[in-house]
Amino acid sequence: MILRISPGRPPLGRRLAAEAVGTGLLALAVIGSGLQAAVLSRDTGVQLLANTMASVCALGVLIALLAPVSGAHFNPLVTAGFWWTGRRAPGALAGPEACGYALAQLAGGFAGSLLAGVMFGHTGAAGTARTGTAVWTGELVATAVLLLVVLGLGRTGQQRYAPVAVAGWITAGIWCTASGSFANPALTAARAVNDGFTGIAPASLPGYLLAQLAGAVLGLALLALLFPAPEEAEAV
Amino acid sequence: MILRISPGRPPLGRRLAAEAVGTGLLALAVIGSGLQAAVLSRDTGVQLLANTMASVCALGVLIALLAPVSGAHFNPLVTAGFWWTGRRAPGALAGPEACGYALAQLAGGFAGSLLAGVMFGHTGAAGTARTGTAVWTGELVATAVLLLVVLGLGRTGQQRYAPVAVAGWITAGIWCTASGSFANPALTAARAVNDGFTGIAPASLPGYLLAQLAGAVLGLALLALLFPAPEEAEAV
Amino acid sequence: MILRISPGRPPLGRRLAAEAVGTGLLALAVIGSGLQAAVLSRDTGVQLLANTMASVCALGVLIALLAPVSGAHFNPLVTAGFWWTGRRAPGALAGPEACGYALAQLAGGFAGSLLAGVMFGHTGAAGTARTGTAVWTGELVATAVLLLVVLGLGRTGQQRYAPVAVAGWITAGIWCTASGSFANPALTAARAVNDGFTGIAPASLPGYLLAQLAGAVLGLALLALLFPAPEEAEAV
Amino acid sequence: MILRISPGRPPLGRRLAAEAVGTGLLALAVIGSGLQAAVLSRDTGVQLLANTMASVCALGVLIALLAPVSGAHFNPLVTAGFWWTGRRAPGALAGPEACGYALAQLAGGFAGSLLAGVMFGHTGAAGTARTGTAVWTGELVATAVLLLVVLGLGRTGQQRYAPVAVAGWITAGIWCTASGSFANPALTAARAVNDGFTGIAPASLPGYLLAQLAGAVLGLALLALLFPAPEEAEAV
Repeated sequence: MILRISPGRPPLGRRLAAEAVGTGLLALAVIGSGLQAAVLSRDTGVQLLANTMASVCALGVLIALLAPVSGAHFNPLVTAGFWWTGRRAPGALAGPEACGYALAQLAGGFAGSLLAGVMFGHTGAAGTARTGTAVWTGELVATAVLLLVVLGLGRTGQQRYAPVAVAGWITAGIWCTASGSFANPALTAARAVNDGFTGIAPASLPGYLLAQLAGAVLGLALLALLFPAPEEAEAV
Repeated sequence: MILRISPGRPPLGRRLAAEAVGTGLLALAVIGSGLQAAVLSRDTGVQLLANTMASVCALGVLIALLAPVSGAHFNPLVTAGFWWTGRRAPGALAGPEACGYALAQLAGGFAGSLLAGVMFGHTGAAGTARTGTAVWTGELVATAVLLLVVLGLGRTGQQRYAPVAVAGWITAGIWCTASGSFANPALTAARAVNDGFTGIAPASLPGYLLAQLAGAVLGLALLALLFPAPEEAEAV
Repeated sequence: MILRISPGRPPLGRRLAAEAVGTGLLALAVIGSGLQAAVLSRDTGVQLLANTMASVCALGVLIALLAPVSGAHFNPLVTAGFWWTGRRAPGALAGPEACGYALAQLAGGFAGSLLAGVMFGHTGAAGTARTGTAVWTGELVATAVLLLVVLGLGRTGQQRYAPVAVAGWITAGIWCTASGSFANPALTAARAVNDGFTGIAPASLPGYLLAQLAGAVLGLALLALLFPAPEEAEAV
Repeated sequence: MILRISPGRPPLGRRLAAEAVGTGLLALAVIGSGLQAAVLSRDTGVQLLANTMASVCALGVLIALLAPVSGAHFNPLVTAGFWWTGRRAPGALAGPEACGYALAQLAGGFAGSLLAGVMFGHTGAAGTARTGTAVWTGELVATAVLLLVVLGLGRTGQQRYAPVAVAGWITAGIWCTASGSFANPALTAARAVNDGFTGIAPASLPGYLLAQLAGAVLGLALLALLFPAPEEAEAV
């Protein structure tokens, strides 16, 4: 069957479904909890605490649950990172598969955003402008460390800690970067179509996406520095 | 001994006791912490943060502690899900056992609600109406994902993560669904007899229970899609 | 050497030191974090959230760290529970050792309370009366479940989860019982000599201690019901 | 290659890079989350809750990620503790390596502080005086327990719990000591050059550093008491 490119893995269709369902539920967790927190608390710090807790709990659970199916990327830049670092390995993610993953993540993200809108009544393009050096630096750092964590755990044989470690970094990143640590183009796009606590104005998207892309490149550079693959280590 | 239907498991009586004790303590944690939080904080966001934290900590501990005895379902729909997915497996939960589980869960839930009332003085039918498309969608999603997590971890050999994963999803669900993520008919009934922060008016029960039932069906469909059992995968 | 009663364990002196240091740091965590939280926040809910988080994090870490030395009881009723359930097993905790444990826990608790006083300036007998059916029921339930968790994990071969499970139950108990889930005579006594957020008036001590004792007995009864030892299961 | 002193470990250059990156990201997490929390919440308790959560999540993730490379010390006193306790073991950290670690940690800490300044606009020497018996006692206790946890887990074969246990103790310490549980000379110096929620006036540095040094010595004494190395146990 032609779609089953990587032998030993589940069929591609099931993997794409896992990426779509996972990214959709993640988008629901991020956007929905933000909308609810903004209604329930009068203190923005409490709102962001609740939004953080709900988002990273969903993230950790979904990674643990769906990693055996699709790898649980939920993020085009994570998919790109796996494709790039595995490009010479037999049986790794192929380019067309990676594109399918990204499309499934985008579709899932929009569906999750829509579902949050059904429950909390906030829909339409978001109005919150997020632009400037501070937030772009934030996305750069947040995405670089995200890729370093995801791929570095793999290089040291610690993939089983990914659910907790990824959730842990996003918890820290939401609070210690100026940008909210979106660090995920699919979720960023999904936030743009829901006007609420976690929204981002469509006009701010290009800057965020470029900063995330630059962060992914920086993350891969840090990975090569700190966790070189066997052939990279030999070259040094 | 006729009650010991599933060989290799503890006697049914002990398993029913575990379900009753576990569901009772869970009901106490959910309802009691809600009553206390409502007294201690003036911010509804802080109240729900504390209520969430206490509820999911109790949930995780009780699953870890009692899973070796009864499977630690504490929820008639989880019991139904195990019965349905295991219906062709030898030694799985039998129909009459499943009914016993549900009754033990209901009895435990009411006892826990009563115990919360002894300590915090809130008893009587709850007055909080919870009705409409938003909350029904919430229960549908919350229950579907709960069953997907519980049964999906089993399908991928990760049952040992259930205490943390189930607690993680409920944490996210409480905040990202509009319904409070009750996702459990036994606990929902227990909440209806204690008028407080976590209560639900008896008149709102049918809608919640129907939405939870529909969610369980959706969860089983997602399970078959993402984690097909060996014979289902072969059929495809 | 006569003090080394249980072969294969560290010498008794070192185990007593571990119990004293562990209970002392636990008392510091509970009392100190309560004093600090009461200064920093204007919302009692936030104060108790911070107090809970700091207390249970210390509890979990200290159990993991010191369990290989002394078993990490930090609580005379936990020690009594281990003594009672292991009384027929060779190499288990002997009666005189258990008394030594309790004294070390009391001494450590008072030292930790004193240390909190040095840092936060609250000393002297506590003035907060805690009395009545509601709080006594709280201590009864909190202590019963604590012993059920500690000893039940052992009966099911899950001792390695004790740090997280005990911390998890205390988190839930603090919020879902009306008494604050002290559940520990050594810590309760230590709280009586520091007048602050977590204090208890000396006059309220007898009621708390009796309720905790009754809770321990109830916990052992639940243990025998849900996790009977091999010889108990045969007797049935 | 002369820098590769410890055989079997990664080259020293890569280990120093790991210490610098790790300490830098930790400083960013601590300082950045403090600055953001101070802006978002009006309640100091909520600010410190968020600051604690972000700091310890970053700490835990970075330890898990970088321990296979450099040991993930991020703290000159932890490095000193490993050097001291391993000084007679073959292949342990050598003195010159330990000095390199400390310099890398300091450099990383300053870089992280600078990065927080870029994102949140707070730079310049911190103005918060932190001095007196209460805070010095706090640093003494916080550092002693930190070293006891880090090295004690190693003595009992539980190093794999270090990410969670260290994060757990710092969570407790931040709330139960009067000093904020800096417990780390490199981070303390980094906090002195960023004037914000987590800052410390340069004039208060000597007292903090001396108290941390004394705490490290106390921690090593407690380690020898509770977890004697085989040759120490024999000597007794």
